[in-house]
Amino acid sequence: MFTCTGYAAAGADTALAPFTFQRRDPGPTDVAIDILYCGVCHSDLHTVRGEWGNTLYPSVPGHEIVGRVTAVGSAVTRFRVGDVAAVGCMVDSCRTCPSCREGLEQYCDNGFVGTYNGPDRKSGGHTFGGYADAIVVDHDFVLKVPETLDLAAAAPLLCAGITTWSPLRHWKAGPGKKVGIVGLGGLGHMGVKLAHALGAHVVLFTTSKSKVADGKRLGADEVVLSTDPEAMKAHAESFDLIVDAVAADHDIDAYLGLVKRDGTLVQVGAPEKPLSVGAFSVIWKRRSFAGSLIGGIAETQEMLDFCGTHGITSDIEIIPIQRIEEAYARMLKSDVKYRFVIDMASLKAA
Amino acid sequence: MFTCTGYAAAGADTALAPFTFQRRDPGPTDVAIDILYCGVCHSDLHTVRGEWGNTLYPSVPGHEIVGRVTAVGSAVTRFRVGDVAAVGCMVDSCRTCPSCREGLEQYCDNGFVGTYNGPDRKSGGHTFGGYADAIVVDHDFVLKVPETLDLAAAAPLLCAGITTWSPLRHWKAGPGKKVGIVGLGGLGHMGVKLAHALGAHVVLFTTSKSKVADGKRLGADEVVLSTDPEAMKAHAESFDLIVDAVAADHDIDAYLGLVKRDGTLVQVGAPEKPLSVGAFSVIWKRRSFAGSLIGGIAETQEMLDFCGTHGITSDIEIIPIQRIEEAYARMLKSDVKYRFVIDMASLKAA
Repeated sequence: MFTCTGYAAAGADTALAPFTFQRRDPGPTDVAIDILYCGVCHSDLHTVRGEWGNTLYPSVPGHEIVGRVTAVGSAVTRFRVGDVAAVGCMVDSCRTCPSCREGLEQYCDNGFVGTYNGPDRKSGGHTFGGYADAIVVDHDFVLKVPETLDLAAAAPLLCAGITTWSPLRHWKAGPGKKVGIVGLGGLGHMGVKLAHALGAHVVLFTTSKSKVADGKRLGADEVVLSTDPEAMKAHAESFDLIVDAVAADHDIDAYLGLVKRDGTLVQVGAPEKPLSVGAFSVIWKRRSFAGSLIGGIAETQEMLDFCGTHGITSDIEIIPIQRIEEAYARMLKSDVKYRFVIDMASLKAA
Repeated sequence: MFTCTGYAAAGADTALAPFTFQRRDPGPTDVAIDILYCGVCHSDLHTVRGEWGNTLYPSVPGHEIVGRVTAVGSAVTRFRVGDVAAVGCMVDSCRTCPSCREGLEQYCDNGFVGTYNGPDRKSGGHTFGGYADAIVVDHDFVLKVPETLDLAAAAPLLCAGITTWSPLRHWKAGPGKKVGIVGLGGLGHMGVKLAHALGAHVVLFTTSKSKVADGKRLGADEVVLSTDPEAMKAHAESFDLIVDAVAADHDIDAYLGLVKRDGTLVQVGAPEKPLSVGAFSVIWKRRSFAGSLIGGIAETQEMLDFCGTHGITSDIEIIPIQRIEEAYARMLKSDVKYRFVIDMASLKAA
């Protein structure tokens, strides 16, 4: 075991604060990584505040991790000391169920191990995430990052990127397809960039006039104010796919009505309360209201490679870890374009 | 024009009563049919009572029509006088939109013409359905009925049959697939028979202990009381497809939880109020909550031919048309096994 420093919440009502803890020494299949950057995901906030009711404290969040390899186990061949490496939302899974065998570890029948707040099968206890100076992860769950990318701006690809990439690929966004993205936040802005780079005709839906210009800059062919009934109506029954990244309650039927026959509205944002869906919204046009959860390791690597080729990263604002609570407060007001990323060098300044 | 007799509702609060009206003489592409039997669908009741808010009166309902051809137009080659023929929920569509060209007229971009309460593009006014002694329909919307089938019991195949057949085929029910059917009514009992004949492992969900034996007789491999949480839990994450034929409000999340990764719950019953769907019910396991509307003409013929080969018809109770209001009252109490069919010979006795 070796000692790490990071930031943890001691309880649901406690601000994040410096925290010292132990990680396992790298075993034969492990990769040890010095963390350079960690993105700030809304799930981090839900978890530390105990909003999902399942938080294990102390809680060290963070699952958009980019760093440099400092040690590899004897069986590790894909990584060398000095490589840039990344870790996303998962650090392990059963590896034997049908989903794991198909490279869809996020749907593991036995439950994947989250990068934080998961059951640590190797060291016992629960997993600690990326708001820390280092992490040790089995090589099968470590990703390669194209070194041409800005490493801080690449960190959010590990959750916001893959969460939108996976449904775009699964439902075949590409040339000739009309793809909607609902909501311009951390997920939505990645959805716009990725769908555009995949060659789809991209329409961004937002409630904020102030986001129209930004939506176009990010790659949207059209931006629709979802509060304008006429503008919505003009897109009726025309979408092959809509990726809905809104995590608050909203009118799903209004978006289902924009989907063409056999098309899909896929929810990636996770509103707390159940959504209201009219039976005729899906019966007419044989539409589907579907969901999608992050992405598998193989498709995460595919996405990172695609981002390397196309020069895609997240729009970010870099913060020192000491300002994490301020960042959470601003995130709650959607006051971020479009992702906070913690510069982990700030830990040493603490 | 020629004179027909049938039963119509004069208004939303008026019982069905004898009614005389005109139909067009058969044109070059028309088939004239003397109606022998017409099934009684819940949509008939919704329409005559004005419950969908769009009823045109007088309203002659009925879209599960089986009869005998009495005349054919000069361009009709598939039907001859004396043939048994059938008409389902549609009598026309635009025939030029992508859905029509793919044989999915029920999703016509310009709106299919319903067998009743639709805009009659040939004669003007609105269409009159099958609670009548005769009907004239364009040959492209007339089906052939295998003459080995009991003709009265074949009538409900035209709506209840195709409405469950279409999603079973579209989502590939067959050997090796586990298929759930929710609700044992007119649609559900056809879903059980058809899914069983297609070779799927069929599980019927019902709230009625009294329907367990009947469910098995109809072809279900298992019957689950949906009110029994343990019985439901035993089927968690195991279904490839669930066809939900319940038209009342019910717990969609409970059924979505039984669907395996990438599986689909398809709604064919149409509850009046929106359904409540938890985001995580679809996000976990990448499930879809979809809908399906009746079926196209080509797949209706495919279903009829399949039923001929497998000897499948509906379980029915035959009534004279004079007892239609009593049948509606019993249908509202689910007191029918499993479809009323009007013997149209009773019209002459009136």
